Parts: sequence; structure tokens; C-alpha cells
Amino acid sequence: MTAGGSADGLAIGFQDIEAAAERLRGWAVETPLIENPHLNERVGGRILIKPENLQRSGAFKFRGAYNRLCQLDEAQRRAGVVAWSSGNHAQGVAAAAKLLGMPAAIVMPQDAPRLKIENTRNYGADVRLYDRWRESREEIAMGIARERGAVTVPPYDDPHIMAGQGTAGLELARQARAIGAPVEQLIVGCSGGGLIAGIATAVKHLEPDARIYSAEPAGFDDLARSLAGGERVSNAPGATSICDALMAPTPGQLTFPIHQALLSGGLTVTDEEVAQAMAYAFLVLKLVVEPGGAVGLAAVLSGKIQTAGHTTAILLTGGNVDPDSFGRIIAGAAAP
Amino acid sequence: MTAGGSADGLAIGFQDIEAAAERLRGWAVETPLIENPHLNERVGGRILIKPENLQRSGAFKFRGAYNRLCQLDEAQRRAGVVAWSSGNHAQGVAAAAKLLGMPAAIVMPQDAPRLKIENTRNYGADVRLYDRWRESREEIAMGIARERGAVTVPPYDDPHIMAGQGTAGLELARQARAIGAPVEQLIVGCSGGGLIAGIATAVKHLEPDARIYSAEPAGFDDLARSLAGGERVSNAPGATSICDALMAPTPGQLTFPIHQALLSGGLTVTDEEVAQAMAYAFLVLKLVVEPGGAVGLAAVLSGKIQTAGHTTAILLTGGNVDPDSFGRIIAGAAAP
Repeated sequence: MTAGGSADGLAIGFQDIEAAAERLRGWAVETPLIENPHLNERVGGRILIKPENLQRSGAFKFRGAYNRLCQLDEAQRRAGVVAWSSGNHAQGVAAAAKLLGMPAAIVMPQDAPRLKIENTRNYGADVRLYDRWRESREEIAMGIARERGAVTVPPYDDPHIMAGQGTAGLELARQARAIGAPVEQLIVGCSGGGLIAGIATAVKHLEPDARIYSAEPAGFDDLARSLAGGERVSNAPGATSICDALMAPTPGQLTFPIHQALLSGGLTVTDEEVAQAMAYAFLVLKLVVEPGGAVGLAAVLSGKIQTAGHTTAILLTGGNVDPDSFGRIIAGAAAP
Repeated sequence: MTAGGSADGLAIGFQDIEAAAERLRGWAVETPLIENPHLNERVGGRILIKPENLQRSGAFKFRGAYNRLCQLDEAQRRAGVVAWSSGNHAQGVAAAAKLLGMPAAIVMPQDAPRLKIENTRNYGADVRLYDRWRESREEIAMGIARERGAVTVPPYDDPHIMAGQGTAGLELARQARAIGAPVEQLIVGCSGGGLIAGIATAVKHLEPDARIYSAEPAGFDDLARSLAGGERVSNAPGATSICDALMAPTPGQLTFPIHQALLSGGLTVTDEEVAQAMAYAFLVLKLVVEPGGAVGLAAVLSGKIQTAGHTTAILLTGGNVDPDSFGRIIAGAAAP
């Protein structure tokens, strides 16, 4: 199992993403690239939407998980895998493990969205809940790994995970070219930064002039601040956000050098802007987007970058949200 | 303005749909054809989903409306159009009129979903609300037409409307071929039957062996009963359904001969099956579907036809639903 890396010392290169796309063929959904006339008219430009909420398991995370798991050897497959996650990586790993016929143990916070916990269990994974305030998920996961000889599957700081997530960018850039609208700028939601590292690697190879921005919730804008300051910084403890999927404390060790090399900057959105974007997705786009999946759309709708006259791509990264919190969030949102 | 009709005396033929597709190019959204691994695994076959809830105005209705309106001459455009509709045809006509710069008056029931009324107004239409139990919408509309010299735009019994709606079928059949999964059977939601008449005309031309079924809500299954009995019958007065978009009393005069010539039968679904389908669309497909838009999916999920081992296409015909009724309906649905 190898990831080639890049000539300039980064953890992955374009050929790793092409190889991942080959492995994912027939297993991941090639999500469409869609446009909405109302949104285009509203911003006075073209917004290309890559709806990864339509991906297998309801989020892009399946791409990276499958790319990692399908490269394990027979002995490793028998021992299985272990991962920790607030929910989307959990479902991605569980879904991939089920397809590959291997056991999976997943450590999840007990206050994760119910839908994410149930779906992970429905894929056959052994779910271990923990208390986010009193226990360490890494310790629990490492304990399981030792006990079972299981391989740990990190959520972002792993070349195979990054390369798998990057296949969404490979598809996006090619789909945009195919409709005669090459990507000029791209906004990608970010937690630990695996997705945006993979996507930037793919897109900058195909569209070297594209400007790529991260989008993060206020209070969890560690990447925006790390990019601005030139070194990895952490979020202040105790911050809260409705974006349960985007609460990683700091950019990854392997992902951050890629961010530094390829990104044009980091955008930050408030919970209120995220709620408005979710309501807009419901009312106009007719798509179900979870809070963490809506930060790119929120950045567009709240004018965080200039979109008039440009072709801007966004990812809707996931749609795994409990019906009752969904209803509460969009009911509370001001008219978008 | 001409619709050629078919050699065997039906109101439209394949060439009318090709001509409509030409007119709609660049104005209607070419909605993608999507698949969901969870759904395919559940039924043991392939379900090809054409999400017309992603269409301009949130429903397929824009296709027919634009095809009709863009063929009006200058004098007619100045006088404008008038239509009556429970909401999706209203929005389709209003959106098309706005793009073409002509006035539109729309007669809508006062108990139509708020979102449908607001959207129709937001497209600039003059909305006239009426009481479904005490007033005749046709009379009100005809009065406006006389007063203004406006052209009436019927919701389904018009060759140009049917041909426009049929473009969804043209796209669907070609998209299915392109992924190597030609349509074997197809389920289309039905009210007055314009959509299914247009789609059947397109699909049976390209896939003569495809079996096409209507789907209707219980109590409004006039087409299923008309097909079975060989003549147009009406629904019993006083029936209710959550499918506000599918309450036409009887198949159309022009649509029914096409239904008789091309359909394989009619399926009926209950409100509970529709609610389960809407919940499934939310939880698994991550798509917002209104009650009337979910009847095809409901027919698949409740096993109304054999889908195991087959390639079955469905349309999600619309997604215009108020957030509060949406929340109520999916909260009340049994686990799908």
C-alpha cells in the first residue's frame, strides 16, 4: 500500500488521486455537478454545486475510507479496522468495511446526531460511545486496536484518506470543463483538512489558476488563522458551533503543508449564516444539507468572496442531520 | 405555433418533444439522472432517479410552461397570460413569463402551500386567491382572460404543455442509455396526465419495450381506474390527500388517448406510503420532495411493482413544500 506523494515533498500528488479514483470506480457515486438558476441569478455568476450529500453514506467521507480499506491485506481485513469520528467518517468507514467484508469498531461521541450513530450501526459496525468531556477517543480507539490487532483509520491525516477525498475534486474539475465552465474559484468546507488537501491537489493540477478557499465555522477557524499566521494554531477550548462535523482542533500535520502550498485563503461563517444556507438549500435547491455541509454555500450567500461575474464551485459535503434538529435550524433561520 | 401531433391521431408526437427540447435549451435545467446505492441494494435492482425537484421553479412544470409561452407572438406577450393551479404550474408559468418579460395572472386556491403562493408572487405574477369550496377557478381565470385579452395556459390539456413536460422523458431515456442502463420500466406521478403523456411519447419512441405506469394518490386514482375501464372516469367528490399537486378530477381529453395508447397500467399509493417516501428521500437520498412529487418513489418502496432484477426509472416531480408541513409529515412517517 503506497501513496506516491508529490515531487515537492507533500504527502500526496495528482497520481495518488487518479489511483484512488480507479479503486473507487463502481463503489463511490460519481455525484453530478448541478446548477440552480435562482442561485446563479442571485449572485450574478455561476455557482457549480457538487452535492456530496448524495454520496454513498450521505457524505464525501466514503471516498477516503474505501480508498484506505480496500488496500488492506487479507490478514488486516480479518482483524478489521477501528476509527473515531463525530459521525461522517464513522459512516464512511462502516460502509466501506461492510462492502469489503471486514469488522469495524467506531468510537463516537455520545452526543453525536442520532442519525449518524444509527446509520453507523446499520452498516454493521461495533459502535462505542464516549463522553467528549471526560474521555479520550484516541485512547479508547488505541485500546481496541491493541486488543484486536485492528488497523486504525484516521479521519484526515493519512495520505490514502486525503487521496480518496480528492477524487471529488477530480470529478468536479472535469465535470466543470465538460460543461464549458472551468473552475475559477472553489470553496471547500474544512475540519482537519483532508478533503480540501485532496481536492486542492486534484484541482490545482487541472486548473492551475483556480483560487481555492477553505470555509470554517466561527470558533473553529483554525485553518484560516493558521494560513494567515504561517503555522498551525488551535481553536480556543470551549467554542461551540452547530457544525458538529467541523470541530477538529487544528489542521493536520500532513494536510497543512498542502494547504499552505495550494490554498488562497480561509473563509469563516457564523452559525446564523450556516442556518440560512441550510434553509436556502431546503427552499430553493431542494437538497438536505447538514450544518457542516453547508459552510461553502453559506460563504457564497453571505458574500465572503466576490462571486459576481465568476464561476465558483462549492461542495455540499454531507447531509446527515436529524429531522428534528433540521426543522429547528431552518425554522429559526432568517429568510435567506 | 404548431404541435405536429402523431401519425395515429394523438395530440403530440416525438418530433414535438424534440422541438420543445430545442426551445428549452439554456432555460430549463437538464436535471441529472442519479442513483443511490442504499435504494438499489434495498430493492435488488437499479432505480434511476430523475430529480425534477431540482428543475427551475422546483418542479417539472417550468418545461411545459416555457414551451407554451415562448411561442406566443408579440401582441400576445404584451397582453400576457393567465393560468390556474394549485401551485407548481403557477410557479412554472410565472417563472417563464418573467424570463420572457410578459405579465402573468395566476388563480390559486387560498389553502395552497404558502411557499407555492410566495414563490409565484416572487416571480412577479399577479396572484388571485380563491376559495376551492365556493368559487370556480376556471370562471375567475376566464374573466381575467376576457378583461385583459390574456392567453390562458392550461395545466395539462394542451399539446405544447405536454410536449414541454415530455422533454424530461427525452433526457431521462438518453441519460439512462448513456450509463448503459436503458429504461425497462418507468413510474410517473400523475394528476391531469400531461407529464406522463409527454414522457410516454418520448420514452416509448426511444425504448419501445419500456413499460410505463402512472402513480396516483388513493382517492385520486382516476387514471388507474380510467385505464382499467377503458374510459375517462372521475374521482369521488370529497376525497382528501396530502398530495396537494395531484388532485385533478379526471384525465384530460387530449392526454387520455395517449395514456391508453402507451401506458401499461396505473399504480395507487396511500398518504402513509407517500409520507414514508418523503422521509426516505430526506434521510437517505438527501432530497427535498413534496408529497405529490414522491408518489413514484412511494410506489417503488411499497412494492407496487416488481423492481428486483430490473432497471426502473422514477421522477421526483417537485419539491415545493412548506417547512412546517414537511417536518410534520416526515416526523409522522414510520421508519421507511
